[in-house]
Amino acid sequence: MDIILTVAVPACALLALAAALFNSLRLRRLSEGEEAQKKIAKAIRSGAGAYLKRQYTTVAVIFAVVFVIFLALSLTGMMAKYTPFAFITGGFFSALSGFIGMKIATYSNARTAVAAKSSLNKGLRAAFSAGSVMGLVVVGLGLTDMTIWYLLLKFVFGEPEAQIAQYMVTFGVGASFMALFARVGGGIFTKAADVGADLVGKVEAGIPEHDPRNPAVIADNVGDNVGDVCGMGADLYESYVGSIVSAMALMAAAGLADGAKILVPMLIAGAGIIASVIGSFFVRTKENASQASLLRALRTGTYIASAIVAVAAFPIIWFVLGSDKIGVYFAVLCGLAAGALIGFFTEYFTSAEYKPTKDLAGTSKTGSATIMIGGLALGMKSTVLPVVIVSAAVLGSFFLAGGSLESPENGLFGVAIAAVGMLSTLGITLACDAYGPVADNAGGIAEMSGLDPEVRERTDALDSLGNTTAATGKGFAIGSAALTSLALIVSFKTTVESYASPDVFHLEITNPAVLIGLFIGGMVTFLFAALTMEAVGKAAQSIVLEVRRQFKEIAGIMEGKAEPDYRTCVDLCTKSALHKMILPALIALVTPVVTGLILGVNGVMGMLAGAMVTGFLLAVFMANSGGAWDNAKKYIEAGNYGGKGSDCHKAAVVGDTVGDPFKDTSGPALNILIKFLSIVSIIFAQLIVNFSLIK
Amino acid sequence: MDIILTVAVPACALLALAAALFNSLRLRRLSEGEEAQKKIAKAIRSGAGAYLKRQYTTVAVIFAVVFVIFLALSLTGMMAKYTPFAFITGGFFSALSGFIGMKIATYSNARTAVAAKSSLNKGLRAAFSAGSVMGLVVVGLGLTDMTIWYLLLKFVFGEPEAQIAQYMVTFGVGASFMALFARVGGGIFTKAADVGADLVGKVEAGIPEHDPRNPAVIADNVGDNVGDVCGMGADLYESYVGSIVSAMALMAAAGLADGAKILVPMLIAGAGIIASVIGSFFVRTKENASQASLLRALRTGTYIASAIVAVAAFPIIWFVLGSDKIGVYFAVLCGLAAGALIGFFTEYFTSAEYKPTKDLAGTSKTGSATIMIGGLALGMKSTVLPVVIVSAAVLGSFFLAGGSLESPENGLFGVAIAAVGMLSTLGITLACDAYGPVADNAGGIAEMSGLDPEVRERTDALDSLGNTTAATGKGFAIGSAALTSLALIVSFKTTVESYASPDVFHLEITNPAVLIGLFIGGMVTFLFAALTMEAVGKAAQSIVLEVRRQFKEIAGIMEGKAEPDYRTCVDLCTKSALHKMILPALIALVTPVVTGLILGVNGVMGMLAGAMVTGFLLAVFMANSGGAWDNAKKYIEAGNYGGKGSDCHKAAVVGDTVGDPFKDTSGPALNILIKFLSIVSIIFAQLIVNFSLIK
Repeated sequence: MDIILTVAVPACALLALAAALFNSLRLRRLSEGEEAQKKIAKAIRSGAGAYLKRQYTTVAVIFAVVFVIFLALSLTGMMAKYTPFAFITGGFFSALSGFIGMKIATYSNARTAVAAKSSLNKGLRAAFSAGSVMGLVVVGLGLTDMTIWYLLLKFVFGEPEAQIAQYMVTFGVGASFMALFARVGGGIFTKAADVGADLVGKVEAGIPEHDPRNPAVIADNVGDNVGDVCGMGADLYESYVGSIVSAMALMAAAGLADGAKILVPMLIAGAGIIASVIGSFFVRTKENASQASLLRALRTGTYIASAIVAVAAFPIIWFVLGSDKIGVYFAVLCGLAAGALIGFFTEYFTSAEYKPTKDLAGTSKTGSATIMIGGLALGMKSTVLPVVIVSAAVLGSFFLAGGSLESPENGLFGVAIAAVGMLSTLGITLACDAYGPVADNAGGIAEMSGLDPEVRERTDALDSLGNTTAATGKGFAIGSAALTSLALIVSFKTTVESYASPDVFHLEITNPAVLIGLFIGGMVTFLFAALTMEAVGKAAQSIVLEVRRQFKEIAGIMEGKAEPDYRTCVDLCTKSALHKMILPALIALVTPVVTGLILGVNGVMGMLAGAMVTGFLLAVFMANSGGAWDNAKKYIEAGNYGGKGSDCHKAAVVGDTVGDPFKDTSGPALNILIKFLSIVSIIFAQLIVNFSLIK
Repeated sequence: MDIILTVAVPACALLALAAALFNSLRLRRLSEGEEAQKKIAKAIRSGAGAYLKRQYTTVAVIFAVVFVIFLALSLTGMMAKYTPFAFITGGFFSALSGFIGMKIATYSNARTAVAAKSSLNKGLRAAFSAGSVMGLVVVGLGLTDMTIWYLLLKFVFGEPEAQIAQYMVTFGVGASFMALFARVGGGIFTKAADVGADLVGKVEAGIPEHDPRNPAVIADNVGDNVGDVCGMGADLYESYVGSIVSAMALMAAAGLADGAKILVPMLIAGAGIIASVIGSFFVRTKENASQASLLRALRTGTYIASAIVAVAAFPIIWFVLGSDKIGVYFAVLCGLAAGALIGFFTEYFTSAEYKPTKDLAGTSKTGSATIMIGGLALGMKSTVLPVVIVSAAVLGSFFLAGGSLESPENGLFGVAIAAVGMLSTLGITLACDAYGPVADNAGGIAEMSGLDPEVRERTDALDSLGNTTAATGKGFAIGSAALTSLALIVSFKTTVESYASPDVFHLEITNPAVLIGLFIGGMVTFLFAALTMEAVGKAAQSIVLEVRRQFKEIAGIMEGKAEPDYRTCVDLCTKSALHKMILPALIALVTPVVTGLILGVNGVMGMLAGAMVTGFLLAVFMANSGGAWDNAKKYIEAGNYGGKGSDCHKAAVVGDTVGDPFKDTSGPALNILIKFLSIVSIIFAQLIVNFSLIK
């Protein structure tokens, strides 16, 4: 049976990649439209390609430097010997996931616009296909990377299972590091362009979004691809791999990783791939469908996939792990349920269908200050339910999987496998998420190339649906980040125990190292959020000044007689993004090392816990404030409180603008940060144990 | 010697009260001006009095209910027998501190305006005298309350010292609970009025601040007194008492509390009172002084007071505690230094003299969205240095006072005494802080009663100085809150250990109770901030609508021919404040109990740590964002970026408006919250130990 299981995992990975290839070939057969659409699509494609080339070049240099440092540490025995190489492969596959996602998105945006000419359903199918290529590539490449390493370690290097698990948990570091750059860099690019374009175009000049007269409009479209698509791809690649390897490590710590049993997390992920592919078939609707039925179509696909995993996980646990460990199965269910619940409540707090966002739109009656206060309060308040859900999932999966205070190992593995359960259907949830920016771009192309207003209406309907699925997707990303980072913190502890005696830990709050660590961890998340927001603010300011300059200096631009200089705006965004993404990433890399060398392992544990808690809260707060502002604005644009152009609308645009970096730059980057800090701590554990100032 | 020491403490308390009385008598001799000033002052006084009467009535009912519950618990042996009564006295003295502060402030505002007619120095002396009455009353009443209880417990009830300390730490609960109501209620009142008045008056109608045509102008002035004065008084009363009693408790836990030694924290506080009185004499300047020399005058007074405490604490530690414990003296110095440093960096981040706030003013060039993003980022970034300073103070005071990982008791006492050191000069730092609202009110009265523009310029200078000292004061309040709440968390642990075996604690992060506790603690601070902000936002909206209504319906109001209906605005604020202050306070009271009954003592420890860390960060962030927006606006009003009325100014007003609840409602209330949660946990410790679901 071991061989069957060992083959099953790569088979699932290949299935994902094959399905992605199939979808992308089908997409290429669609028409990209007339010359007008092709030209804009090409401009977006080349802008995104140029940005990514420069981003990857910059990151490659940093990776090379870090690789050399890692190599030196591993040669002196201060780091596990495979880590430097796994660092590279993780980074490579994470970058590749983002790159393929960006490619397919930029090939599909015009095609979606053209497809929407025929019907809403055709548009949905085109955009969803692009999203599902992305989703399947991420899970396919993730599972491929892990399988290759597993096979290498087991059959080439002949490592024992427990050791394999210990090694593999460090492999997330490259993926996380890459994800951090992609999210932060892409996030700065996209939001600087978006905010800049809106502030001058919509607010000052009063021209619609995506109007071709706006010099920042191409940069805005490019941003959707490099931030919302490529950044998200790298990000979720990291989440996916991180949750699986940390579950394997905790399995080993619980003594459950003998033989093929260690494959259980990967098998659940594999079942999720099959489930996602099956679920995708159900995402279709009638030709003359309403928007509500579109949403139902997406939901049906996701729920079917979840149901399949819920069924398939049972035999996996029962036969592979053993019937006495069936409690682990219920931990998987806890994860699936928690993911769905967080997704629902995220939607509740950010969708204009529900009271909170409707009320928020009402606060615009008294101006932008009150909608700011209202949105900040809404986001802060919205942290309550995710905390309760995550807490319940932790408690439930811990005790159901057989954990107790005296021997918590099984319980902690339960928490980790709950995260795997939550992310197992990523193939389809990410497809729903990634389809949004494609629809958004399609709308932009429709507007700019002067397609029928009806087409624009359809792409708007698709886009607005994308906002809802994006909110759900963010709930998943945040919830899984909390569970995974908890698993990684525990992995840090077990890693340290393999180098030092267990009594090195004094984790009481009365230990000043723990206490100060808690403060530092919390503070790092605030600093990180501040730096990323500030970067967006400053970059957006430079775009605003540039757009104002062009409006003033290029004669005939507002009459549509002269073409604006799109390139300068793309260049400005590129420079800002590359320049400003480095410091936050370096802070994330350096914090665990410095904290460890001064405060020791207890300080690091405190720091990780502080970052996890505060980072989770900040991430939820920022994502939901941002989402609610966005949809409050859309709610007003739909004709409430005076509709477009009213004072209420102006106030709501200010809210939306502040919400942009909240929800698409800082918030999502925090999810990566809290996991990255833990992984960095793990790979430097030995160094910290040996050289810390306070023991 | 014991008798001398026992007499010294009440003597210092009486000195403070006598000095306060002397100052207030001197103040009453000043002229309150013409009929015009008197009339406005009376309107403010009666509005503030009416609000406080209703606030105290509401709070009295809640106190009565809680008292009965406490009494029932103490009769069944589930709570220490003195707690219900100490709850009442703490609440009473805290309320009294706020009330006297409000009284003196409302008696001094017109007098300050009149004094400023003669010279800037006379104005400063009048406002500072009012502030110093407040400062001295707070420390005087605080020390009186503690002395009475100490004498009662020792000489009437014959309790041993260790027991006295254990009892006294619970006495903060009444003061904290009262402070929570005063800060939240007063904070909602003042900011609702301020925001509402600004939004319609300044932004929409384009009339200056404090313009008598604005129907919310009296409510705004009343708010300064019930929020910034009365709320702050109750708040700092609580901080002062909390730091001293928690130091006494940790002293007892370290076995250092025999005989008169237990008086050491109170003696340091007493030395601080003498130092504050002496320091006050140095707050004077030449008649034709510049604003810079005013600030220097205030600083000189504060530094002299600090220096006196730094000298006086040495013999107190050496002779009373013993020369072998002289390390504790250095812990006191750590506290004094940390307070000064946090104060300085708070000023750095929020004063328009330095780069951060100047840069923030520049972000207004691209509108209100970018100044929002900039201010939020600034506040988040400004958490770094306070965390570093507090961390250094904790590490320093812990090890200097003789703490070690194996026996941390002495070190933890060191941390607690550092907080006492930081707050010892409260008599004068609070005077500097409380003088701001008096100057602000004086400016309002000068404007409304049509005094010479020169007078208004002088009161503006005094007010602007008040902003700087308020920033410093906030630094002290936050820094001391972090240290005190740490001391209180440790007290909770020692309290539990007196009821249960020490092995009840499993404080590892691998314990799901601890972990979930951390999340819940962090979440409560976000929820608390959200509810208080939302309350301000909603109340402000009602004021805006009312002011708009009056502008429309009352003919001749804008020409100054008809008087606006000030009362309705005061009533609206009163209702909102009373209505919205209850839920946050109840959440704070219930959270420790519910967490404890479900998750047990480990869950409570996690919750307290999570709330301390996240609450501290949120408090610093909100206070500094708010302060920086306020001063960025003032910087623009001083003629930069187009000055008053420019687009930049409008954007800055939006920032300032959002900053108002940040810095004066939610931020300061968080300081109280984190301590209050700990004290509530302590008084319910026995109940939690006996009845928790998870042990």
